[in-house]
Amino acid sequence: MTGLLRVGMVGAGAMGASHVRTLATWVPAARLCAVHDADSSRAEHVAAAAGAVAVGSAEELIDSGDVDAIVIASPDPMHAEQVLACIAAGKPVLCEKPLASDVELSRQVVEAEAAYVERHGRRLVQVGFMRRYDPAFVALRAHVAAGAIGTPRVVHCVHRNAASHSTATTEGIVVNSMIHELDHVPWLLDEPITAITVRVARDTSDGALGDPQVALLELASGTIATVEVFVNARYGYDVQCEVVGDDGTAGLTPPYGLTVRSPLASGGVCGVQVSSDFVQRFADAYRIELADWVAASLRGAVDGPGAREGHRANVVAAAGIESLRTGERVEVPAD
Amino acid sequence: MTGLLRVGMVGAGAMGASHVRTLATWVPAARLCAVHDADSSRAEHVAAAAGAVAVGSAEELIDSGDVDAIVIASPDPMHAEQVLACIAAGKPVLCEKPLASDVELSRQVVEAEAAYVERHGRRLVQVGFMRRYDPAFVALRAHVAAGAIGTPRVVHCVHRNAASHSTATTEGIVVNSMIHELDHVPWLLDEPITAITVRVARDTSDGALGDPQVALLELASGTIATVEVFVNARYGYDVQCEVVGDDGTAGLTPPYGLTVRSPLASGGVCGVQVSSDFVQRFADAYRIELADWVAASLRGAVDGPGAREGHRANVVAAAGIESLRTGERVEVPAD
Amino acid sequence: MTGLLRVGMVGAGAMGASHVRTLATWVPAARLCAVHDADSSRAEHVAAAAGAVAVGSAEELIDSGDVDAIVIASPDPMHAEQVLACIAAGKPVLCEKPLASDVELSRQVVEAEAAYVERHGRRLVQVGFMRRYDPAFVALRAHVAAGAIGTPRVVHCVHRNAASHSTATTEGIVVNSMIHELDHVPWLLDEPITAITVRVARDTSDGALGDPQVALLELASGTIATVEVFVNARYGYDVQCEVVGDDGTAGLTPPYGLTVRSPLASGGVCGVQVSSDFVQRFADAYRIELADWVAASLRGAVDGPGAREGHRANVVAAAGIESLRTGERVEVPAD
Amino acid sequence: MTGLLRVGMVGAGAMGASHVRTLATWVPAARLCAVHDADSSRAEHVAAAAGAVAVGSAEELIDSGDVDAIVIASPDPMHAEQVLACIAAGKPVLCEKPLASDVELSRQVVEAEAAYVERHGRRLVQVGFMRRYDPAFVALRAHVAAGAIGTPRVVHCVHRNAASHSTATTEGIVVNSMIHELDHVPWLLDEPITAITVRVARDTSDGALGDPQVALLELASGTIATVEVFVNARYGYDVQCEVVGDDGTAGLTPPYGLTVRSPLASGGVCGVQVSSDFVQRFADAYRIELADWVAASLRGAVDGPGAREGHRANVVAAAGIESLRTGERVEVPAD
Repeated sequence: MTGLLRVGMVGAGAMGASHVRTLATWVPAARLCAVHDADSSRAEHVAAAAGAVAVGSAEELIDSGDVDAIVIASPDPMHAEQVLACIAAGKPVLCEKPLASDVELSRQVVEAEAAYVERHGRRLVQVGFMRRYDPAFVALRAHVAAGAIGTPRVVHCVHRNAASHSTATTEGIVVNSMIHELDHVPWLLDEPITAITVRVARDTSDGALGDPQVALLELASGTIATVEVFVNARYGYDVQCEVVGDDGTAGLTPPYGLTVRSPLASGGVCGVQVSSDFVQRFADAYRIELADWVAASLRGAVDGPGAREGHRANVVAAAGIESLRTGERVEVPAD
Repeated sequence: MTGLLRVGMVGAGAMGASHVRTLATWVPAARLCAVHDADSSRAEHVAAAAGAVAVGSAEELIDSGDVDAIVIASPDPMHAEQVLACIAAGKPVLCEKPLASDVELSRQVVEAEAAYVERHGRRLVQVGFMRRYDPAFVALRAHVAAGAIGTPRVVHCVHRNAASHSTATTEGIVVNSMIHELDHVPWLLDEPITAITVRVARDTSDGALGDPQVALLELASGTIATVEVFVNARYGYDVQCEVVGDDGTAGLTPPYGLTVRSPLASGGVCGVQVSSDFVQRFADAYRIELADWVAASLRGAVDGPGAREGHRANVVAAAGIESLRTGERVEVPAD
Repeated sequence: MTGLLRVGMVGAGAMGASHVRTLATWVPAARLCAVHDADSSRAEHVAAAAGAVAVGSAEELIDSGDVDAIVIASPDPMHAEQVLACIAAGKPVLCEKPLASDVELSRQVVEAEAAYVERHGRRLVQVGFMRRYDPAFVALRAHVAAGAIGTPRVVHCVHRNAASHSTATTEGIVVNSMIHELDHVPWLLDEPITAITVRVARDTSDGALGDPQVALLELASGTIATVEVFVNARYGYDVQCEVVGDDGTAGLTPPYGLTVRSPLASGGVCGVQVSSDFVQRFADAYRIELADWVAASLRGAVDGPGAREGHRANVVAAAGIESLRTGERVEVPAD
Repeated sequence: MTGLLRVGMVGAGAMGASHVRTLATWVPAARLCAVHDADSSRAEHVAAAAGAVAVGSAEELIDSGDVDAIVIASPDPMHAEQVLACIAAGKPVLCEKPLASDVELSRQVVEAEAAYVERHGRRLVQVGFMRRYDPAFVALRAHVAAGAIGTPRVVHCVHRNAASHSTATTEGIVVNSMIHELDHVPWLLDEPITAITVRVARDTSDGALGDPQVALLELASGTIATVEVFVNARYGYDVQCEVVGDDGTAGLTPPYGLTVRSPLASGGVCGVQVSSDFVQRFADAYRIELADWVAASLRGAVDGPGAREGHRANVVAAAGIESLRTGERVEVPAD
């Protein structure tokens, strides 16, 4: 492999198109070569803008001799199968979260990659937990690790979207949204989640979306995290995280927009603008994630969260879904 | 009863002495006449400063013909008995929280007052849940009630003290500190707590104080509240509360001190000073609480949270303690 | 004089009526006895609510044997004459700012009080610079005086009202609004203003109100203060003050209302509510000011800002008005 | 010129080295080929890390056939001469601010470029006013231009560094630091500065550095800006900007670090960490500036602030220095 990574993109929706722009603008070491999407006109549109070719199937793209590495931003149910195809082709893959839509599938990915490592001595799979690349999350983790707040004891997470897709489901909120917290809380504290309780706030039991959800995560040391996920919070996209320790607390300073003082119909307000755009919120994280993944791929390595982390988040999510169903606290198996 | 309420103070510790100063400075309609404390020199000191007399026993003070109404700020285990004595004497009483140290005692108070109401047609007991008088809490409740955030679905509460008393116990954190949230969350939302889960964060099981604690409160509508109580948070006294609704959120703006920009050994900081003084934090609330209680007492009424509310908080606290012991979610009995 | 100060109120507009309520509710040592207003029905209304009598003229009220001390909240042009009448009657007076509408009148007050002090050995006049009683301003001054920010070098002041009265004038903004900064900046730093430059931002020169205004104040030590006064800022009443020193900065944390996160037509916002109500903003300051003034008056003393401070602010304001007219920096005479 | 811009770097100090890293990591369309620095070992170190060659003189680098375009990050007094050499060589140049150390030199640059444009029909010079590329400044300008705050009337700017270089001079604070505000205020409001008053706060007149400085800028419309520049503010690097309009205000939300709650020796604090690192503060701006400059250079265009803007800032700075010397308001000549 030379100093230039030829990348193929599977999925050309909002996320895929954003990755294409980021690669083209900010990642010198990558060249986007091929794009596939179930909607072929969308694939062609994105490919054309990037000077790449549209490819008719994911399999064809993954196996193409012109593609060194693959980014997967297709619908969730297709992730596992496509990652397995990348492993079969022996190519590095960056797969959007979740790694798979259920635990059995993510386990298959872990096992397939393990078999590959056995034979070839290197890993292939990275999962798109981009928060691990966000400068503020990175600083928070370093701050906690440096002992600046003493022993961490409690974590508070808030995760709000302005509005959910029409396809959102109650269980999907766990697997698709809360999965970020299920990954980053253990990463922040460097210890696994051992039990989870998830409840819908004001569940109407009439089939409506179970939103917002509140979870209590218990970690191996006994540290506890509260998590609110609210995918229809209306006012904007808002990700908060505070770690509370014996010697103080540390949390994200949200990268809000302008500070405004405005007269409103309801009176005046002084505050910050909150955008609804989650891609913009984590633009730095996506850029750094892609650049690091490209650099590591060129070295034949995977530096970011891998199949194991992706699978682990799925294991915790499955326990969370069981808790949602039963109303009980559910212990998370060690693996 | 004339336009001047002659008040007796039972308990002359920090809280009692603060109430004495507040009454003297800011409540024209009250005159402090008598002070009792188990430490008689403390009683004499506080009494002398206020132009009142020190009295040798709580009973004597309660029964004194010179005392129209009583404020109780004695140690928690003595509350119930002293409130019962006030009822027996037919005198209005403002008792610091908790109303009693267990559910059976608070139930006795409810029943004794009910018997008094039966005979005399008026109530006597108010419990010192002063947050209900804090202008910010009052504004928050009005904001929610006015529908400004739509249907409330989640509440987040944080309650931190700089340092606990040496006498603090794991269960005491529920009965003595979290009891504020157990009262004000139902008051904010106008609906009862129906289940509670309480866990110690990083319980060491070596007899050390179980602190901090995290609780999940479930309300009748399904609304969920998260509560963190941390009585050794070191950096200061910090009470936070945010209500999350379908159309936005609303929360307290903490009444912090000066905004400072300072060079520290660890780098610069821009922020607000946080005091450790919880009496100062709620000084407005205490002042308004006492003034309202005096005015209502002169009218022969009780306008604030009464024996029923004090008992209800104790019922929830007892369920919380059971949850602490068993690690399980505990449903709170209707009464 | 006994332990109860019989107070007469001159002026029963918004400010006067607010003072009446504050005295009645929170100042045990005062009893409002008499009220005068040019609008006699307003005087009667306010008097009746407070159990006082309405009096037909300010002179009659000031001279009344039932009145020990006077609060003046009448229109600005009447202040000086009424204060002079109080001095003539030998009675303590708390006069709303400004002490007088021009320098000659405030100098007369200083001289009249000096003559009274000569004969009677005590002062009589306090000026209603209530910011000196605001807990945040008091804390800021103490913080600076304690050396916590090192040598102060720059002060930034912002003073915004939601909307001005229809009677507002360009010069009146200096004498009536900016006068607060002209008093509190020297008080904060404990040194006089020696020069002032005032400019209207976007002066239209068509007779429209010269608003907002920006001033540069120079103090004896060379410390510089920037001041923005904007009496039609629309979004609310907002008073800001930051002192910048060699070792950091310290400023007011505005006592805003609830912290809200709201979806707006223009996107989401996270911030604090800003009220338009300046009386509410400084409610604590007014309460403490009145209580201190009543207590000092009962002792035959004046503890607050007096005629000299009121006159000094007028001297600086006159220089500010000259600067507005000439566009030049104007040195402020030593007296 | 092909799709790859071969860039030469003049100056390999902190700023130059940062630009080299940014180009290498984030600007695919640029390749750093040559580095010059007066300190040849520093040039070699930076060049080696970037796979470029060290060149013995700026002239040689500018004239080199391997260099398409030049970035100048040398000491200020060398800027103008080096830019003139770039114009003579007909190569695009991005010169760090200020464009020149005095007005005569910047005027020479304007004229030299004008002569080049006359002959060749394209511009060559861009000045490194990177704030124009900062996403927050860009959003602020768009917000104001969209009329969201109505007519702008006042601007407040604060510009603080943790500590100055030992070479800092009183006049240098204007030409080197305040020059940012002298450029971005007219850019934000789209109108020129017509008068300037600059004063040192607590000038000691003993030869010590005249720091902090406070300036009053008057713009063509009458809008007024206050500017505080404090290059020894100790607590960190802090750039603030608020525009006040008839319908509200809008300002930067500083991109601070973590939000911390910490116990300090002096009490608790809740706030954000402030870094001293000005390169980090504007990392996004530098990245976007370089990428845009590279893209425009490849098109034979200059899209950013050019020689005229650089010269204009110098003209205003010269007026500011005259104001510092005379203590008077100085009108800024139209050109």
